[in-house]
Amino acid sequence: MIVVMRSDSKEEEIGSVLDRLKELGLSGHLSQGTERTVIGVVGSTYPELREMLEMMPGVDDVIPISRPYKLSSREFKPYDTVVKVGDVEIGGDRLVVMAGPCAVESEEQLLRTARAVKAAGANVLRGGAFKPSTSPYTFRGLGEEGLKILAEARGQTGLPFITEVMAPQDVELVARYADVLQIGTRNMQNFILLEEAGRSGKPVMLKRGMSATIQEWLLSAEYILSQGNNRLILCERGIRTFETYTRNTMDVSAIPVIKKLSHLPIVADPSHGTGKWYLVAPLALASVAAGADGIIVEVHPSPDQALKDGAQSLTFESFGALMAKLAPVAEAVGRPLPAALEVR
Amino acid sequence: MIVVMRSDSKEEEIGSVLDRLKELGLSGHLSQGTERTVIGVVGSTYPELREMLEMMPGVDDVIPISRPYKLSSREFKPYDTVVKVGDVEIGGDRLVVMAGPCAVESEEQLLRTARAVKAAGANVLRGGAFKPSTSPYTFRGLGEEGLKILAEARGQTGLPFITEVMAPQDVELVARYADVLQIGTRNMQNFILLEEAGRSGKPVMLKRGMSATIQEWLLSAEYILSQGNNRLILCERGIRTFETYTRNTMDVSAIPVIKKLSHLPIVADPSHGTGKWYLVAPLALASVAAGADGIIVEVHPSPDQALKDGAQSLTFESFGALMAKLAPVAEAVGRPLPAALEVR
Amino acid sequence: MIVVMRSDSKEEEIGSVLDRLKELGLSGHLSQGTERTVIGVVGSTYPELREMLEMMPGVDDVIPISRPYKLSSREFKPYDTVVKVGDVEIGGDRLVVMAGPCAVESEEQLLRTARAVKAAGANVLRGGAFKPSTSPYTFRGLGEEGLKILAEARGQTGLPFITEVMAPQDVELVARYADVLQIGTRNMQNFILLEEAGRSGKPVMLKRGMSATIQEWLLSAEYILSQGNNRLILCERGIRTFETYTRNTMDVSAIPVIKKLSHLPIVADPSHGTGKWYLVAPLALASVAAGADGIIVEVHPSPDQALKDGAQSLTFESFGALMAKLAPVAEAVGRPLPAALEVR
Amino acid sequence: MIVVMRSDSKEEEIGSVLDRLKELGLSGHLSQGTERTVIGVVGSTYPELREMLEMMPGVDDVIPISRPYKLSSREFKPYDTVVKVGDVEIGGDRLVVMAGPCAVESEEQLLRTARAVKAAGANVLRGGAFKPSTSPYTFRGLGEEGLKILAEARGQTGLPFITEVMAPQDVELVARYADVLQIGTRNMQNFILLEEAGRSGKPVMLKRGMSATIQEWLLSAEYILSQGNNRLILCERGIRTFETYTRNTMDVSAIPVIKKLSHLPIVADPSHGTGKWYLVAPLALASVAAGADGIIVEVHPSPDQALKDGAQSLTFESFGALMAKLAPVAEAVGRPLPAALEVR
Repeated sequence: MIVVMRSDSKEEEIGSVLDRLKELGLSGHLSQGTERTVIGVVGSTYPELREMLEMMPGVDDVIPISRPYKLSSREFKPYDTVVKVGDVEIGGDRLVVMAGPCAVESEEQLLRTARAVKAAGANVLRGGAFKPSTSPYTFRGLGEEGLKILAEARGQTGLPFITEVMAPQDVELVARYADVLQIGTRNMQNFILLEEAGRSGKPVMLKRGMSATIQEWLLSAEYILSQGNNRLILCERGIRTFETYTRNTMDVSAIPVIKKLSHLPIVADPSHGTGKWYLVAPLALASVAAGADGIIVEVHPSPDQALKDGAQSLTFESFGALMAKLAPVAEAVGRPLPAALEVR
Repeated sequence: MIVVMRSDSKEEEIGSVLDRLKELGLSGHLSQGTERTVIGVVGSTYPELREMLEMMPGVDDVIPISRPYKLSSREFKPYDTVVKVGDVEIGGDRLVVMAGPCAVESEEQLLRTARAVKAAGANVLRGGAFKPSTSPYTFRGLGEEGLKILAEARGQTGLPFITEVMAPQDVELVARYADVLQIGTRNMQNFILLEEAGRSGKPVMLKRGMSATIQEWLLSAEYILSQGNNRLILCERGIRTFETYTRNTMDVSAIPVIKKLSHLPIVADPSHGTGKWYLVAPLALASVAAGADGIIVEVHPSPDQALKDGAQSLTFESFGALMAKLAPVAEAVGRPLPAALEVR
Repeated sequence: MIVVMRSDSKEEEIGSVLDRLKELGLSGHLSQGTERTVIGVVGSTYPELREMLEMMPGVDDVIPISRPYKLSSREFKPYDTVVKVGDVEIGGDRLVVMAGPCAVESEEQLLRTARAVKAAGANVLRGGAFKPSTSPYTFRGLGEEGLKILAEARGQTGLPFITEVMAPQDVELVARYADVLQIGTRNMQNFILLEEAGRSGKPVMLKRGMSATIQEWLLSAEYILSQGNNRLILCERGIRTFETYTRNTMDVSAIPVIKKLSHLPIVADPSHGTGKWYLVAPLALASVAAGADGIIVEVHPSPDQALKDGAQSLTFESFGALMAKLAPVAEAVGRPLPAALEVR
Repeated sequence: MIVVMRSDSKEEEIGSVLDRLKELGLSGHLSQGTERTVIGVVGSTYPELREMLEMMPGVDDVIPISRPYKLSSREFKPYDTVVKVGDVEIGGDRLVVMAGPCAVESEEQLLRTARAVKAAGANVLRGGAFKPSTSPYTFRGLGEEGLKILAEARGQTGLPFITEVMAPQDVELVARYADVLQIGTRNMQNFILLEEAGRSGKPVMLKRGMSATIQEWLLSAEYILSQGNNRLILCERGIRTFETYTRNTMDVSAIPVIKKLSHLPIVADPSHGTGKWYLVAPLALASVAAGADGIIVEVHPSPDQALKDGAQSLTFESFGALMAKLAPVAEAVGRPLPAALEVR
């Protein structure tokens, strides 16, 4: 942490900062510039220290120089984390493809979709049993009944499944059924839920908050990791910007940025990231080209009848077409599709 | 809801839309423009319908024309809602001034602050016992101990208090102590928490999500109102934009917009809205001039020692100065300060 | 400028940075922290230096600590600048009220408006002769004919006028007629236009770019000031955010921020800032309460017939109502309206 | 255009809207819904009409249903536009790769770079002679001298070149030397410059404004196309968002959106889009995977000595590495690199 003094700061103001640092068990290293005096803080700093120092007379700015997240950083763990979910490796040599409907609507809908996505090469099934909904007047999921249907689909297809958990008190229930717990964008800073999910010991996929910076996202990851749960996957799903043509703006750059800053695997969600089915394939390809460890895509037997998010769902046919286009791109970047794996 | 057909849409595509509407118990009113055909949907529509129709062949766009929120709208209830908290009326003839520390740190800190803000004219005490924190490595509040201290301060000063509740399972506990439950910005779309707070029957203050549109905010309000709880207050606290000089960008326009769209009272939080103590007074004045029903402000005995949000906290002295500046502005817009009330 | 080395940087990388600084006529002050080494750059730095140093091996980050703008800063000139336009002082003891139509449409329209806004207490006339337009297929102003009409209105009412200039080659023409040159939001970084306007010697009002940070705005101000033209006024007119209910989000906080960072006067434009006539009055009041030196407001004889921006224009009647509401707020913050001035 | 009346609108208000439409040579088609009356406007509408109608009593909202851009739309011209620059086709079967330094600094710097990027497979040279600069105190380009150096490099390498033009009065000069005129992000709404560039008859590359919606970008394209100049290329270069880790947020989705809405070719600029050299390769790959017709990349002999934008410039070596990675991705999406072309 560096304390920048005002250009007109007085001797005694500089002295007070040095004294305060000493009181706190730290020390200050003085550096006299042409215009300003700068004090480097030596010792173990913490976020609150910044605000405390900013308040002191004569201080112009306080600049943190170390990153506030730890367990998620590459400095802490230089090698890529691979999360194993049954036979599937997320963050390993091959891409992971998660697919399925936004919401579980019925056993028939889910089973048909599960078989179709498996046939097309997906290796994880997705489907919502508890659905967040902007309005209280819309469909909010089948609850435990939905979890049972997902488990049934896993039994029939062998695909492990990922599903969202929305409340701390539901973690235990959802963890009993699901292979991966998903934390949705609206809950990225629901810290109590994060800790509860962390404690479950289950693999967790943490979606980026729609207005969260990359740093805030990694700080939320800390809540899960600090419970001793290292089976964590990040998911880029678009951020909120001024552009309204797309539902969100898919921040494809976040993928290589996370790869640089963190050891955690990262999956891309072009369905929520764009909100339009005809943009899902180009953004899935783009995300994989940029280095994503996998994609998560919404697929529905008849999107125009879907109870939720139909506009961004692929049909079985268009999902098949996406997989056909994705295969050569995945090969081109050295991360082949999971389908190839099963052939061996 | 209006269905806009593509300029090259075919007869049978238009027919299919009309048929689908009939299936759903609605009807379509055809309007042939120079370039495009437009179908007005007659009957009671719902959000999912939009996506369903957007998926149909030949459809270019589907435009909702009624607002998705109901109970919070002025069309539903034309007259202003006034929320009574003890003797204090929020949304009534006089402003409400809520003040206190970001977090309750100790009995001594809170009692001193409570007395000081009361003396300066505040009529509600604020203070956090459960604190959301971006990082798991920082101070997160005293919990129930903090609630007891707040209750003690109420006993000594007569000020009712508002405090944040972060988890559904804590609502019952916090409601046992608090006069007003606060839902924080990160939880604006924590729908399970909203319903639980709604069911408590306690007055609730719902902060705007930092990246929520005004419409999404009112939809979150519906979650609370639809539980039969009408004692709801909105709070503008700044939104996330590209500007980094301020912590958030205080959306002062949201105040008159809410007054137009809704009957609910609205309070402004210039402390979080700006993140800098020297901007709190100008933005408090601005918010009141724009029509806010009150302000909520962070005050701390020694901001440079605060465990949280010191940089945006006022000292007792600067809070007094704010109240002195606010009085004539409040008079000028016909909403006098609460202090005047006590004189009667 | 401070160079933060990576935690794993090597001796020779630190040495290279110090050598490079020496080559450039600067020196480096080494500060060894617990985790990282930090080098304070001593000497006169410049923006490009940052990128050069960031590229060097072992460097993690380079942090500028002095502000890149100079002539516009309060450090350069501690006292408020007052811009005189005829008898009107912008930034002086009284507010300035600029009013008039978005675009000059005809002599009759402008003269009626000029008389009406003068009668209601405005002291500067506004009106566009050259209009930027998002689409090439819409009205783009009367050009020099419009300037002549504005000059005629000045002759009849005594009100000085402000009008936009869009192209460097038009500066000379517009300066021949106008009292104040306006640089619009889309041209805030049209650097050639800024310099040309600066060289004209005329007072200039520089609107904030709709996606410009406060720092970028002050840097654009430098382009005008560095031509030796100190008669510069800033204008906050809303920034682009995700909220779509309002045309822009009026950044009211920018007003006290500018007052803190700069000596330049600042005027608020609630017409463009909100895009809706019924929000103009509350945001005008808010801006003045926050410390603005004046307001600029669109007024039209029949907004529903306006060729441009009718939705945000006030009628004569609603402008009169605004002035009546503004008067007590202006008094409350110690900056009375100009009308009072004329009484003397 | 559709006029939505308020739920409490009166008969005569509806009548007034119909009368006004008749006055304007249009007609209104009435549609009575359960809650609201809606009027479809029949005839040729224009943007100003919207605001006029919004002002009328009883009107709640006016919704445009046709897009305001024409010449740039796929409805106007269904087939892809291919812009020929010498032997290079932009928007054709093969990718275009534009590379070179941000700014021309010297003949030696540019010639070395031109030869290096050609050797690595680029087929257009880029380099700035007139440079926009946020601050007046930084390097602003060599001017005509820079153009001469670019022409010299073209002579030696055979590569056509693209360079920015910043002022209407410079268009003739720049067009005398350059193969393609670039309009920078800060000038996307400098409408006078757009028209002047359109009139030059030269191919133009129009960068997206950093806070421009896709619709505004296409409207700016209209300014050039409406001058009879069809040799227009769009360039996505990142938009401004709340995320500060990257300089801008590259809106990769804009690429397939443009392909859907428009017939114009689109090129991606990952250098400005990310601002960090190590993100250039992943975003270049992502853009091509998403359907871009080409990339434009900054390359410098020694980025750490660059006078401008060093942090986002590739070395010759890293540009070679990018081309090696790009080749298989380009093949995978069926748009091979230009290098392959020359081999034939």
